[in-house]
Amino acid sequence: MTALLGWWQQRCDASMVLRFIDINLRGVGQVMFQNQPFTGLLFVAAIAWGALAADAGAVLFGGLLGLATASLTALWLRVDAQSLAAGLYGYNGLLVGLALPTFLAPSPLLWFYVLLGGAVSVVCTLGTAQVAGTFRVAALTFPFVLVTWLLLLATYGFAGLQGAALPYASQVAAVEPSATNLLDPAAFLGGVLQSISQVFLKGDAISALLLLAGLAVSSIAAALWGLVGALLAVVTAHALGAESDLVSAGLMGFSPVLTAIALGAVFHAADAPRLRVAGYAVLGTVFTVVAQGALNVLLTPFGIPTLTAPFVLVTWLFLLPRAPAAAGNDGG
Amino acid sequence: MTALLGWWQQRCDASMVLRFIDINLRGVGQVMFQNQPFTGLLFVAAIAWGALAADAGAVLFGGLLGLATASLTALWLRVDAQSLAAGLYGYNGLLVGLALPTFLAPSPLLWFYVLLGGAVSVVCTLGTAQVAGTFRVAALTFPFVLVTWLLLLATYGFAGLQGAALPYASQVAAVEPSATNLLDPAAFLGGVLQSISQVFLKGDAISALLLLAGLAVSSIAAALWGLVGALLAVVTAHALGAESDLVSAGLMGFSPVLTAIALGAVFHAADAPRLRVAGYAVLGTVFTVVAQGALNVLLTPFGIPTLTAPFVLVTWLFLLPRAPAAAGNDGG
Amino acid sequence: MTALLGWWQQRCDASMVLRFIDINLRGVGQVMFQNQPFTGLLFVAAIAWGALAADAGAVLFGGLLGLATASLTALWLRVDAQSLAAGLYGYNGLLVGLALPTFLAPSPLLWFYVLLGGAVSVVCTLGTAQVAGTFRVAALTFPFVLVTWLLLLATYGFAGLQGAALPYASQVAAVEPSATNLLDPAAFLGGVLQSISQVFLKGDAISALLLLAGLAVSSIAAALWGLVGALLAVVTAHALGAESDLVSAGLMGFSPVLTAIALGAVFHAADAPRLRVAGYAVLGTVFTVVAQGALNVLLTPFGIPTLTAPFVLVTWLFLLPRAPAAAGNDGG
Repeated sequence: MTALLGWWQQRCDASMVLRFIDINLRGVGQVMFQNQPFTGLLFVAAIAWGALAADAGAVLFGGLLGLATASLTALWLRVDAQSLAAGLYGYNGLLVGLALPTFLAPSPLLWFYVLLGGAVSVVCTLGTAQVAGTFRVAALTFPFVLVTWLLLLATYGFAGLQGAALPYASQVAAVEPSATNLLDPAAFLGGVLQSISQVFLKGDAISALLLLAGLAVSSIAAALWGLVGALLAVVTAHALGAESDLVSAGLMGFSPVLTAIALGAVFHAADAPRLRVAGYAVLGTVFTVVAQGALNVLLTPFGIPTLTAPFVLVTWLFLLPRAPAAAGNDGG
Repeated sequence: MTALLGWWQQRCDASMVLRFIDINLRGVGQVMFQNQPFTGLLFVAAIAWGALAADAGAVLFGGLLGLATASLTALWLRVDAQSLAAGLYGYNGLLVGLALPTFLAPSPLLWFYVLLGGAVSVVCTLGTAQVAGTFRVAALTFPFVLVTWLLLLATYGFAGLQGAALPYASQVAAVEPSATNLLDPAAFLGGVLQSISQVFLKGDAISALLLLAGLAVSSIAAALWGLVGALLAVVTAHALGAESDLVSAGLMGFSPVLTAIALGAVFHAADAPRLRVAGYAVLGTVFTVVAQGALNVLLTPFGIPTLTAPFVLVTWLFLLPRAPAAAGNDGG
Repeated sequence: MTALLGWWQQRCDASMVLRFIDINLRGVGQVMFQNQPFTGLLFVAAIAWGALAADAGAVLFGGLLGLATASLTALWLRVDAQSLAAGLYGYNGLLVGLALPTFLAPSPLLWFYVLLGGAVSVVCTLGTAQVAGTFRVAALTFPFVLVTWLLLLATYGFAGLQGAALPYASQVAAVEPSATNLLDPAAFLGGVLQSISQVFLKGDAISALLLLAGLAVSSIAAALWGLVGALLAVVTAHALGAESDLVSAGLMGFSPVLTAIALGAVFHAADAPRLRVAGYAVLGTVFTVVAQGALNVLLTPFGIPTLTAPFVLVTWLFLLPRAPAAAGNDGG
């Protein structure tokens, strides 16, 4: 892997086009915190497979358009070179571009929306990094969530954009107990895998395996925590009595997957005791299932999806207290 | 009192168990900003009386379980010893544990919820303190509000937890003028006392008197401002035309009570002119009544209670501008 | 102009009453970021004309009362003299005072509400400045939005205050395509002018011209960007398919007008390349139209107006990333 990366780096140093591609591939990898071009390549394969298997080529095209728009906007705004090279200005634009054609009907205005969202995602990333950095936490996918929520909410007031697949805006009501059935092994396994692939907004087992492979080429720990997060989420959601269709479609698990990777394999202090890091990541992952349930309810009257807001909320909450990790030095 | 405290301190120094009890008692006192074990003891008596008088033993048990969970989680996370000893990691867990059995039907999952909420309340307290501390304000009961809101909202999507006593999720509509009647003296006095006891989620006059006694053993000023806050809240809410049943049950006044104590007796600069501190506290208390009315409406579509969010919002607003208090030095 | 300002300054130095008037006039100008008493005078004329033409004297009176209350509260709280003299503690109180009689029926309690809102707007301005200042952005009209939202929301629970002209609280639904008609030139021009006057909550072409004149005596660039913002907003909103009645009444454009002035003529770095500043301001202005659409939907269940929240949200987002402006030094 290191040799391959070295060879690729040499090619990139020699060509501006390849360098731009490298930035974008790393941007794709950053959705799951991996600054690695081959991870990005496997993730693109996962996105492409998921989109084409669902006959949704517009989603693949939207994602790539949003990604490229974000990268070009970042260049125009003269962002700092190091973050740009690490793909940190691309992943939110990618997700905006995947989400808009997922929820809206195709139309010329939809592509204007993707361009606008991709560009504004960079401004929002810069702004979020400014605020979040003050408290030593990362921007995560907050820019994606905020920009996409605004764009989707507004479609209810714009006749030119149609929310073909938006959730129906309705009154809050308790779930019917009859909607909760015991999961059979196939539904359980499907729920685990689709929890992983839903991070990129598609429920697809093959995509999930490609994503796990992409994680593994960069970090075995990240791949393991992703899987553990998905398992924990499906078990917790099922035990609490979440709607079975949501659980088996991975819709209760994609945010917990991201929380698990973030807390278990990415942002912990290097010298913190392993057991405490693991316990902390498990606590955060389980609470992300509750946050996912809560945001499903909170957004019911507005007819928009939660996106990865539960992950952002809980991971920020769990990353803010840096003192405990540091205190691990003198006692843990 | 000082001699008694000294004797207790000696006992605590000699016993780990008593030290743990001391931490938890101070945690109970911190709901009303008092770092004092006997205040905590009187508050526990008030909670116990309120719960048992209402035949709601689960609420008392939940509160103690949430408190102990929070204290143990704080120990596990190696929080700073001074804040821990002052009870600052316990009061939010206590309130989470009181609130969940107040609004949800008893079930095994309810106790899992209390454990989860108690543990996460500590993470949230650490995170909130990090952010709020940057602006030199305290975390207040924000962790309690955020964690409990998420846990309660999520129950609408979880068949395993039933919101037996949650407010009904409905559409916003103006209050009927006929719901506003002139308060007779008994209803007025009841409203004042229950505004105090509702800080711990129960409307009970005896509890209120125990709480006032608990405040008084630690700070006469705090007890007076608590009473003034309750009086101001009932008068203001009634004058504005709030629903009489809400006013006389103390449901318009528990947040203003906390604002009044916080601004009038706890967080002001020691050298600020008394009259300006009092005027500022009165302004904040009256505005908390408006904020209580506003949050009642804002949460109507979601079917969850405001908890002490109006207090947190207004008190943060009034604590952020520290310059005026300082400026009192050279002119007030 | 300079000579006239000098003469006025001399008069103010000699008279406490004139100095107080000067502070208040500058406060009126600050709604559009102009620290200039004659701008304020022309703005007062615009407000007076708009109110009297609509037979709404209560709105004019409310605005002046809110403004005076805010200035007096600022004096009482010993705010810093320089910001006070620049009118920075007045403009939010003015807007609170204009908004309350615009949406609520006249009654004695309405004037209590204006006094309360005017006073609290100063506390909120101090608090917002503390937080926003940490990230080097201005408070903008956030205090006006927050305080007015709370006061208006609460009226649904207070029988003493009636939301005579509040939007109807209802369920979110997509706009009817038939509500979007091609704008004829008169409706188009009306939409542009009323987008400017709606900053002060009235749709009136004469008011708009007085406001543009007021801007021009202080800053030609601000007047031009105000006009450009209004044009961009009407074109964008219409192209996206916003309800024609909203567009031609200026209700999709008043927030974009403020964003355009802020980003194009006020807060950019002096040495940033002109073209990039302009492109950035256009991007922000167009996105403010989307934010206006989104907040219209978000507030539908609550029956309150967006006020200038879309402007505050987007302008904060676009002001937070100061690095790009600085990076302009070494490359743009």
